[in-house]
Amino acid sequence: MAFSLKIALAQMEVIPGRPDLNTRTMLEMIGQARRLNADMIVFPEMAVPGYLLGDTWEQRAFLRDCEEYGRRVVAASEGICVLFGNVGVDWDRIGDDGRVRKYNSFFAARDGRLCGGDNFPYPFRVKSLQPNYREFEDDRHFYSLRKLALELGEKVEDLLQPVVMNVAGNELRIGCILCEDGWSEDYSFKPMAAISRNGPVHLFVNISSSPFTLGKNNKRNRVFSRQVKDACVPLVYVNNVGIQNNGKTVFTFDGCSTVYDAGGRTVACCPPFSPVLEVVDLDLASGGAGLSPVGVPDDRDTGSIYRALSYGISRFLPSIGIERVVIGVSGGIDSAVSASLYTRVLGPDNVLLVNMPSIYNSPTTRRLAEQLARNLGCPYAVVPVQGAVEFTIGQISRTPVVNLRDGRQFSLGVTPLMAENIQARDRSARILAALAAAFGGGFTCNANKSEMTVGYSTLYGDQAGFFAALADLWKHQVYDLAEYLNRQVYQWEVIPREIIGLVPSAELSFDQAVDQGKGDPIVYPYHDYLFRAFVENWNRATPEDILDWYRRGVLEENIGCRPGLVKRLFGSPREFVEDLERWWKAYTGMAVAKRIQAPPVLAVSRRVFGFDHREAQNGPYFTSRYLELKKSILGCSQGQ
Amino acid sequence: MAFSLKIALAQMEVIPGRPDLNTRTMLEMIGQARRLNADMIVFPEMAVPGYLLGDTWEQRAFLRDCEEYGRRVVAASEGICVLFGNVGVDWDRIGDDGRVRKYNSFFAARDGRLCGGDNFPYPFRVKSLQPNYREFEDDRHFYSLRKLALELGEKVEDLLQPVVMNVAGNELRIGCILCEDGWSEDYSFKPMAAISRNGPVHLFVNISSSPFTLGKNNKRNRVFSRQVKDACVPLVYVNNVGIQNNGKTVFTFDGCSTVYDAGGRTVACCPPFSPVLEVVDLDLASGGAGLSPVGVPDDRDTGSIYRALSYGISRFLPSIGIERVVIGVSGGIDSAVSASLYTRVLGPDNVLLVNMPSIYNSPTTRRLAEQLARNLGCPYAVVPVQGAVEFTIGQISRTPVVNLRDGRQFSLGVTPLMAENIQARDRSARILAALAAAFGGGFTCNANKSEMTVGYSTLYGDQAGFFAALADLWKHQVYDLAEYLNRQVYQWEVIPREIIGLVPSAELSFDQAVDQGKGDPIVYPYHDYLFRAFVENWNRATPEDILDWYRRGVLEENIGCRPGLVKRLFGSPREFVEDLERWWKAYTGMAVAKRIQAPPVLAVSRRVFGFDHREAQNGPYFTSRYLELKKSILGCSQGQ
Repeated sequence: MAFSLKIALAQMEVIPGRPDLNTRTMLEMIGQARRLNADMIVFPEMAVPGYLLGDTWEQRAFLRDCEEYGRRVVAASEGICVLFGNVGVDWDRIGDDGRVRKYNSFFAARDGRLCGGDNFPYPFRVKSLQPNYREFEDDRHFYSLRKLALELGEKVEDLLQPVVMNVAGNELRIGCILCEDGWSEDYSFKPMAAISRNGPVHLFVNISSSPFTLGKNNKRNRVFSRQVKDACVPLVYVNNVGIQNNGKTVFTFDGCSTVYDAGGRTVACCPPFSPVLEVVDLDLASGGAGLSPVGVPDDRDTGSIYRALSYGISRFLPSIGIERVVIGVSGGIDSAVSASLYTRVLGPDNVLLVNMPSIYNSPTTRRLAEQLARNLGCPYAVVPVQGAVEFTIGQISRTPVVNLRDGRQFSLGVTPLMAENIQARDRSARILAALAAAFGGGFTCNANKSEMTVGYSTLYGDQAGFFAALADLWKHQVYDLAEYLNRQVYQWEVIPREIIGLVPSAELSFDQAVDQGKGDPIVYPYHDYLFRAFVENWNRATPEDILDWYRRGVLEENIGCRPGLVKRLFGSPREFVEDLERWWKAYTGMAVAKRIQAPPVLAVSRRVFGFDHREAQNGPYFTSRYLELKKSILGCSQGQ
Repeated sequence: MAFSLKIALAQMEVIPGRPDLNTRTMLEMIGQARRLNADMIVFPEMAVPGYLLGDTWEQRAFLRDCEEYGRRVVAASEGICVLFGNVGVDWDRIGDDGRVRKYNSFFAARDGRLCGGDNFPYPFRVKSLQPNYREFEDDRHFYSLRKLALELGEKVEDLLQPVVMNVAGNELRIGCILCEDGWSEDYSFKPMAAISRNGPVHLFVNISSSPFTLGKNNKRNRVFSRQVKDACVPLVYVNNVGIQNNGKTVFTFDGCSTVYDAGGRTVACCPPFSPVLEVVDLDLASGGAGLSPVGVPDDRDTGSIYRALSYGISRFLPSIGIERVVIGVSGGIDSAVSASLYTRVLGPDNVLLVNMPSIYNSPTTRRLAEQLARNLGCPYAVVPVQGAVEFTIGQISRTPVVNLRDGRQFSLGVTPLMAENIQARDRSARILAALAAAFGGGFTCNANKSEMTVGYSTLYGDQAGFFAALADLWKHQVYDLAEYLNRQVYQWEVIPREIIGLVPSAELSFDQAVDQGKGDPIVYPYHDYLFRAFVENWNRATPEDILDWYRRGVLEENIGCRPGLVKRLFGSPREFVEDLERWWKAYTGMAVAKRIQAPPVLAVSRRVFGFDHREAQNGPYFTSRYLELKKSILGCSQGQ
């Protein structure tokens, strides 16, 4: 194919569930591309409806609406190829759930007409590989090309024909694929290879709606580059920006739309988290070889985490109508990082910081909380809770409980642990919730992932809030983020160094007195990594794996913590086992109940609590091989 | 096939995530069946591991454990056919997520060996139709027979061969299917018909793990009976009892294992919600025609709801270690029904009832709450909240908020609405949570489905609790249940008639004074049905559908409320539209945020909040056709 193609990468912000707004954006971008003399404009997957919509897909009125807006996009394709994602509906067939059949579809339009219906049952292309892992549940909503092939009695490979479009007198053959179709490594079936066999193909276009995950772009570049080299055909990858959520979990979309030349080199890359229209001149004769390779930003560092979090906060808050927040600041690291992040996004006047001391809060942390508020320039209030907590304890323990039938009477006692939880709930459900309403906003949950994993928090207490922006960060990542905020974002010590140096503590009792170096029962330099193996390992680690690694001396290496740490922490195998069982029971026991009622979490890792971490409240379990291992390690005297 | 087969239906209680306990149950039941001279024992789907396990399927140690326990079941099959469900693992292949491949599998063992490997790639059978709707997400975890066929390049029909087993010298050909394979109506592919074509088949066995849903058994009997008649082969259906959950939603399993003779008549039916082993003599020559037809219990009435709820409560509480509960009783209907239900399950001494009056609670409801406690014989406490609420309001409004940088200072005001929420949170997060800990249990959430739909509740207030047992019942179903409890369960007016007659009210302000007949803004006789159309219609109704039905005069008929009600409630189309938009905005707006943090809900309907009702926090949307309809109904003066 001996001509140059001017392609506009439309890295738009997709608003989920708003075909009206998305179509307006698309029509504007089409106009812009036309003014730039682009031959083709490429929008992301599900650009019209958005992707993460829950069961909105079951509303026929919504589907009709998406079709209607899709027609408007097609109508706007006069003189330009418009490639975009939308739901494709077959009103005459049903899906496996008995509802009208929906496809996750790729539309290609030109001069007001859809292309591609000549060699396919529909005038649009259909996703072959539908992800059903992590936050994805494509099979719940959409009928895949694999199922369609089975139904038609055809080979799925035969259905994967290029779409032929006429561009400036040339017959351009495009390999149209949707997101996961480019990630075929784990599937028995490879869509790009199948289309290539039905070639020639001049250009691959992958439209995606792919959430940000730490390190995912690095992997994508490896995976896509290899396939492009195999096919020897350039690839245009367009991903949206914005945020979308599944209720319990909020995902950012970083865009990072990329052009790969036929040699697999990245020759264009849109900036992360920015809505942009970028035009690339692709010489199809050389497969784009004339373009200079561009570097792609690393997405594995703390800077990427900061960008994802601040972007996520900046987009999520307006999406739910929140402009101001209240943050409880204890003088500890989590609330300090939270306050610094939100202040950066909303401006100091929209962030009310509140310190709520009881008798257990040290002068040190109270001073540091105040210092933080001064540094950030936020409005600040001190609301002591000691009086109210004592009132509640008194009210509970003095109230007579009576059986009115037989006159039996008793009263209830409040233990120190109960008093700790009363304190935590007093702060959040009594003070912060009321203050947030009065301030005209919401109050944040400052929990980190280490706490969330084992439920080291109080329900309706410090676990409460409208949004948990840090809850996908292990404690050590929170520290890294604190350093990054000081060094790179604020460029001065807005988070006092003393806060970073303080022993982590909930300060709910004198057993957690920071000034005596006492604090949390979680030893973060070890437990962060143990918990990560439970939660984030693709093949989830369980006590059986951990104990096996411990026995074989490869635990630190396998979970990634500092060498020598395990020996220093645990004097004996028995201590090691007790610690392991304690936290496994917490993670799979009470912590599940707490997570069920936890706020939405902002995702950054490859396994985030909420919808990406499906769990049942089934209680802890130890496999039979774990029990054997334990017995052999602790000696035969041990029962199960 | 001219012989009689003694089949034991093992309607066991499956404990999810506990292969150790389930295997113990299975081995006991095998022993029992052997003593009863059964030729065959049939266990439910996923009898070894349980079915709803979240992402526990990603733990390789757990999979190995299930295999090991499965081998023990197979080893116990000396002299008896043992048919059971377990996960089938192919350690050499991967699933679409790159993890080790898992199948939802049907194992048939005899004399310590697995049967069926002679005409299938594995020594077990694999589920063909994997449900991905409602609470099901089989494709997330398991590789279906349809995908396997595609990978092998074979026709899925050819893989559906009967399993041949030797029973008393006879070669018995069994059509082995898993749950959804019998519900093929909506699928392009029908497993039972396919196996029949590969026949002869002497007997169909469907092993299931099918949660209770109001009316589902009635439908199942229709669907299965028809297929059995077509195939002219008897069918044994075995379903488990117990409870399983997906975190946000708790499902009961009613068993109701059934034998259908070749004519499609039900000739045996196990009792609902009871673990039983029932032996049926099935004469294969006549296809079971010698057996008398049995009636199957109706599962559409209030009695079924009561059975599901009381069973669900009785199994869920011990599963999470809760033996005692605290219930806030307001004198209203929801808390009265909740108290009566829990008291029935736990006994009165384990249910602490608490009334927490403020100045807004009428003498009437306070008296009724006390009367209820007396009737039930539960311990009772009165904990007034007025003082604490006033203290909080004072503390919030008197606290100076200061900007420490520039000395700017302000204070915050508390509006009447904020004070209502402070009241609600004071009751739940301050009093009930502390009392529950002191009483050694949890406190219940008494919300109903009407409130949950539109978020008519306070977060960390009346929406809080460890379990929401009534939250899948519309308000009118709560009333029906109250009548049922009095009439059928307690057989006297344990719930005072006055409570049933009272206007429903939150009593959080004088605008909700029950003694003046004031109460909730929800008009239950209409809104219950409107909300049901939003939530439970298989094709979910939206304002576009509602307005269209209203315009065409078919609204009441379509949503199922009393005729004439709409006209009486709304003086004009404008009033109708305002009401519709108000509640749609609530349902898809703030109520979503509240449900994200709601307690687990006990399921009874065909669409329950939580995991069965996937939703994103995307805000309200009105389709373009809705806006046109509205314009045409309200006249051209209306903008959008």
